[in-house]
Amino acid sequence: MNALEDLARLLKKLPGMGEKSALRLSYHLIKTEPSFNKALGEKIATLQDRIHPCPVCGSYTEDDICRFCSSDDRDRSQLCIVEQAQDVVSISQAGIYNGLFHVLGGAINPLNGIGPAQLSFKTLLKRIDEGSFKEIIIATNPTEEGDTTALYIKQILRDREGLTVSRLASGLPIGGDLGYVDKTTLARSLRGRIKL
Amino acid sequence: MNALEDLARLLKKLPGMGEKSALRLSYHLIKTEPSFNKALGEKIATLQDRIHPCPVCGSYTEDDICRFCSSDDRDRSQLCIVEQAQDVVSISQAGIYNGLFHVLGGAINPLNGIGPAQLSFKTLLKRIDEGSFKEIIIATNPTEEGDTTALYIKQILRDREGLTVSRLASGLPIGGDLGYVDKTTLARSLRGRIKL
Repeated sequence: MNALEDLARLLKKLPGMGEKSALRLSYHLIKTEPSFNKALGEKIATLQDRIHPCPVCGSYTEDDICRFCSSDDRDRSQLCIVEQAQDVVSISQAGIYNGLFHVLGGAINPLNGIGPAQLSFKTLLKRIDEGSFKEIIIATNPTEEGDTTALYIKQILRDREGLTVSRLASGLPIGGDLGYVDKTTLARSLRGRIKL
Repeated sequence: MNALEDLARLLKKLPGMGEKSALRLSYHLIKTEPSFNKALGEKIATLQDRIHPCPVCGSYTEDDICRFCSSDDRDRSQLCIVEQAQDVVSISQAGIYNGLFHVLGGAINPLNGIGPAQLSFKTLLKRIDEGSFKEIIIATNPTEEGDTTALYIKQILRDREGLTVSRLASGLPIGGDLGYVDKTTLARSLRGRIKL
């Protein structure tokens, strides 16, 4: 086995990478500028030495505390709860949310052995107790597990006074076509219809 | 910009990798076993230090001469001409060819400034002159450029006596469905129909 096949064997383990595409990528890399490969390789090899979860919110950072939690410019009355750290990036890029984040580390999924104890609910409640939040925005995925998790959060927060709990709207994706939208999404967009 | 976005920025330059998939892959890597990332990163970074084109046929190798050219078990009367080094792997994996290979390094494409001089025809003719080949199998792609290149090879070899020149058959892919095959492929499979 030579270095190319060796590389393809590792690349094949990445998500969405089949045997053919792994080999094609290896052959692409061998024709690439060597300095690019050196940079990419070094970044992959050292990624976990440089990045770790923020001890406050759970999103990834190179610093002691992440840029959201340590920022003075963010609205500390809003907390957005997401399943995964990458969701923080997506919501942050949407450009209209300026509050803080909390990463659960997944969604409640009893069949896979993930209950509330496996997710970061303890630190979530501690943050809410010690913080000055007025609104909790649940941004779990619109899936069965995300729905269960959203309901669970709503329930554990039901006795907190002065705390609004909301969830991201589900409905038609912008630019979508009614004819191609699945019926569950359509049902949700009907149930959540907005008065004009 | 942190290490994750930094990595995503580089990954985005790989073929078939969009902004979202580059970010998703970065987040996948941060949850991966660190030893895997170290191995993958090192292989990417050192790929071109370990691999170089075989001076005889042009396929990639870690040795002075590639395993095909240096093998005693291969049929030295057959030479298969391919466009790219990865085509050597594909044909070799098909499992029925046991001859030698020659990598052109591309196909004739005047619009992109690639003429015969930019491809390895000089070493090809030298190999044919000095070797003991009886059959040349042209395995360029079934594209306009591949067709042009095949015709060109046929022409420069037309005066060699005792040399059979053939080309890979084009036609219906195995397991394919007539209804989904494009008309050019269908036309080729009709023109190249085989008597039973």
